[in-house]
Amino acid sequence: MDAVRTIRSKRDGRRLERQELFDFVAGYARGEIPDYQASALLMAIFFRGLDPEETADLTQAILRSGSVVDLSEFSGPKVDKHSTGGVGDKTSLIVAPAAAAGGLLVPMISGRGLGHTGGTLDKLESIPGFRTRLTLDEFRRALRNTGAALIGQTDDLAPADRKLYALRDVTGTVESIALISASIMSKKLAEGIDALVLDVKTGSGAFMKTPESARELARRMVEIGAGCGKRVRALITGMSQPLGRAVGNGLEVVEVLETLKGRGPQDLVEVSRELTAHMFLLGGLESTLEAARGRFDGVLASGAALRKFGEIVEEQGGDGGVVEDYARLPRAEHEESVAAWQDGYICALEAEALGRASMRLGAGRERVDSVIDPAVGVVLEKKVGDAVVAGERICAIYANNRAPLAEVRAAIRAAVRISEEPCPPPPLILEDIS
Amino acid sequence: MDAVRTIRSKRDGRRLERQELFDFVAGYARGEIPDYQASALLMAIFFRGLDPEETADLTQAILRSGSVVDLSEFSGPKVDKHSTGGVGDKTSLIVAPAAAAGGLLVPMISGRGLGHTGGTLDKLESIPGFRTRLTLDEFRRALRNTGAALIGQTDDLAPADRKLYALRDVTGTVESIALISASIMSKKLAEGIDALVLDVKTGSGAFMKTPESARELARRMVEIGAGCGKRVRALITGMSQPLGRAVGNGLEVVEVLETLKGRGPQDLVEVSRELTAHMFLLGGLESTLEAARGRFDGVLASGAALRKFGEIVEEQGGDGGVVEDYARLPRAEHEESVAAWQDGYICALEAEALGRASMRLGAGRERVDSVIDPAVGVVLEKKVGDAVVAGERICAIYANNRAPLAEVRAAIRAAVRISEEPCPPPPLILEDIS
Repeated sequence: MDAVRTIRSKRDGRRLERQELFDFVAGYARGEIPDYQASALLMAIFFRGLDPEETADLTQAILRSGSVVDLSEFSGPKVDKHSTGGVGDKTSLIVAPAAAAGGLLVPMISGRGLGHTGGTLDKLESIPGFRTRLTLDEFRRALRNTGAALIGQTDDLAPADRKLYALRDVTGTVESIALISASIMSKKLAEGIDALVLDVKTGSGAFMKTPESARELARRMVEIGAGCGKRVRALITGMSQPLGRAVGNGLEVVEVLETLKGRGPQDLVEVSRELTAHMFLLGGLESTLEAARGRFDGVLASGAALRKFGEIVEEQGGDGGVVEDYARLPRAEHEESVAAWQDGYICALEAEALGRASMRLGAGRERVDSVIDPAVGVVLEKKVGDAVVAGERICAIYANNRAPLAEVRAAIRAAVRISEEPCPPPPLILEDIS
Repeated sequence: MDAVRTIRSKRDGRRLERQELFDFVAGYARGEIPDYQASALLMAIFFRGLDPEETADLTQAILRSGSVVDLSEFSGPKVDKHSTGGVGDKTSLIVAPAAAAGGLLVPMISGRGLGHTGGTLDKLESIPGFRTRLTLDEFRRALRNTGAALIGQTDDLAPADRKLYALRDVTGTVESIALISASIMSKKLAEGIDALVLDVKTGSGAFMKTPESARELARRMVEIGAGCGKRVRALITGMSQPLGRAVGNGLEVVEVLETLKGRGPQDLVEVSRELTAHMFLLGGLESTLEAARGRFDGVLASGAALRKFGEIVEEQGGDGGVVEDYARLPRAEHEESVAAWQDGYICALEAEALGRASMRLGAGRERVDSVIDPAVGVVLEKKVGDAVVAGERICAIYANNRAPLAEVRAAIRAAVRISEEPCPPPPLILEDIS
């Protein structure tokens, strides 16, 4: 394997052959190709890009660096959902039980939050006892028992991705559509799924700031899926304000439970419904979107999705009592408010700023080794488009430490815009790419 | 020092501040910044380039990673010459004694050959006993005694360059005008010189294949010199055919001695004269190029340059007897010929191919750890523009090993073109940049 030749080829704008990518990734995973050659190739890819075929080959190369979960014992359709991450994005906790209650098998391997975005695992771990580190055998058993399992990355799935991701993080090569697509898709394909629904978020609180870049990432991931014989569909959804009202781990679990009880905020319900409905479609349980939405509404109305949530929690060692008794979730010591300073309409609730404010309270990670406080965060009592009168509460702040409160309150005020003219709520589902 | 920030800045096309470059290079030299971050920055520089100010800052940063030779004890003008490397380029061995005989101090730190190009140190070491590894104290003593010293890189001069160069070699980041300029100039400025004449070669046998790229490199290096308060001038010279007739270490020393005795090939004499004349000008020993050329012709005609060569050889431990007795140089066992296959005119003697043929005989290095055979190589009996008749010898081959001879002979034949129409010799001095 001539690593320098591969680097120079990409540097000079030539296509990389499938075998070259396989050899490079395998050599890197085995430690035969050093970090400094991998980072040079990553930077060359940052500048030159990868075409769809190269991206699919890279994805396969990363996938083959480890094993693929064997779910052949299950006959039903195995469908997962993945979001590129946002603020207040707790749809996985709604979608997984709803999809499983509706008849799908949902083998969901998720990540942790970093920076202003939250992570599914952190949210689940705010439930006392909930274990996200299962072995692959436990993962299969959980799927058999409840139809859904939500766990963290294991060492044997796509190990090259972990190594490459860590390297990208310290070499300024994170923001590449090709590298992001290959990283996400290699992990998802390692789950042994038949189909995948992607939620590609766009807006100030998302990784992809513009609809154009979100569309490009969505297309690339759909193409990779097709190249690997999987049914993949992507929704592009708005992330200019937080999704739902709660931002913070335990607070989001309460909102999830309220949603499963039919009392969720409209935007969160709508995104969860669309994602789950597309999962039903891809899984072949329904043949029209209308019927698939009906199936989602049905499992919510019957309480089946809520019961499924409780089953999943207990299967993974958590306290199922939280479903009815929110007091079993960690609670913050202090509650504060940010109130409207004038009459008018809420025109902006900057998602990234609110995500960072919540992180500052301890709900998120500034660095990979930061410790999360599951009780803290913010809850929005108004959303964009709502009318407010001066003095009315816009946002509740839940904190265990008073030190950052002044700073957090100022950051939240700066993230809110109130206008005298009415503002329409931002679009929620921008596009559907398949 | 936030290395990722520096990498991202350059990646996104922003200028790097002087302090950022200093911190990065110093951190890398000390081992605090790992290779994988340095290679990511190098690849970003490959794509984004460095502006003249950034290049000068990078040069200074590399220079400051080590010490600068202190030549303050010498009052005379200290002027060096540096060539970007070619085939049959033995001008250093003529220029250094001629310049010293003409009154300059020449502190010359040179490199070894790699690939198809030769290296000054390898040529000198074909002289029995010649030592190119002097300590800086021995270097200063040699300068005091003879006015010129020709040595290899020492560990304490620009150590960051050695580390960066080795990294560039294995990460596909060699071919960057900014990085090449900074690498060359940091080493030359570490010599403690007042002025520098650069010989930037262009053509098939040179690193810079086109006059445009050679001009860009020359301009960049002249700018760096000016930014550091040094007088720097660059000549762009042709390297489409080998310079002179001999290619191979001991064979080139014989040609050097013949040249110093007034019997050198016209092209080699002309390039050596122009380079030395510019050194006299920059050193302030003459005020017109005409007079400076006259000074070069004078030290050749009087035998002063030849005597100086002998003094340098003896000062550095070599056998001064070679000056009069070429049999003291290593001799190859076998001599073969490539003859003209038709009547006509020599139209091309591809320099790179001839350099590679000579390397294949053992005169050059395929890898940094290859061992050089000082006796072998090729000697051209015809040059581009010369008339030949069928059967006449074009090239002599000197070998110690018959194994590669068939291949070498074929490669030489492929490097020669004979046409029925007369061909003009290629231009020798293309441009003068200051």
